[in-house]
Amino acid sequence: MKSEKVNLKDKFELFNEYWTPKIVGELNGQQVKLAKLKGEFVWHNHKEEDEMFLVIKGSLQLEFRDKTITLNEGETYIVPRGVEHNPVAPEEAWVLLFEPETTRHTGKVKDKLTIENPDWI
Amino acid sequence: MKSEKVNLKDKFELFNEYWTPKIVGELNGQQVKLAKLKGEFVWHNHKEEDEMFLVIKGSLQLEFRDKTITLNEGETYIVPRGVEHNPVAPEEAWVLLFEPETTRHTGKVKDKLTIENPDWI
Repeated sequence: MKSEKVNLKDKFELFNEYWTPKIVGELNGQQVKLAKLKGEFVWHNHKEEDEMFLVIKGSLQLEFRDKTITLNEGETYIVPRGVEHNPVAPEEAWVLLFEPETTRHTGKVKDKLTIENPDWI
Repeated sequence: MKSEKVNLKDKFELFNEYWTPKIVGELNGQQVKLAKLKGEFVWHNHKEEDEMFLVIKGSLQLEFRDKTITLNEGETYIVPRGVEHNPVAPEEAWVLLFEPETTRHTGKVKDKLTIENPDWI
């Protein structure tokens, strides 16, 4: 387990790929990840894992089958396990994710965007 | 489990007590808490629980037995389980905590500041 101070904005400056979560912390079997999002992701769910989004910069739309939640900077939303969702970012958004270390960002969906083993940054 | 959009700054406006964490989210057996800090807390550790601090506003000093880490806005630090620490905020600081739902903010230390059952906000 790494234990170091993390400046979120500095970490975001270290990468430019979209939809490619980077790990910045680990605790109690959970991970803290940073991702830059732009455009539309892919519909998926995480059967056993709740997932929290915190918008650090920009704006994120979380599409659900029955509603859309828009998150702006400083806003969080927890997607409960099993709930299908699709993140959409019309403009570039910076997002912090809290989720179990087992979570893959596309759930069980295998997509061209799927990253099997996120890197630490 | 609650699932609603949370605007962190709006939630912070709802309370003024220092050293009184309020729960704003729950996922995977972990909780997301908000706390306003000012002054010095109490030396303690969490034997089985890692604890993450994210500074939302102001500045926080995390004192350890061998060093002090200063966190400013947008900075995180994970205190590993078992490590004694003492949070100090010379000026008011707003902090987001991520930790297991079993975590009590003073660990096993019983202090006049101890809150046994934090409220949801």
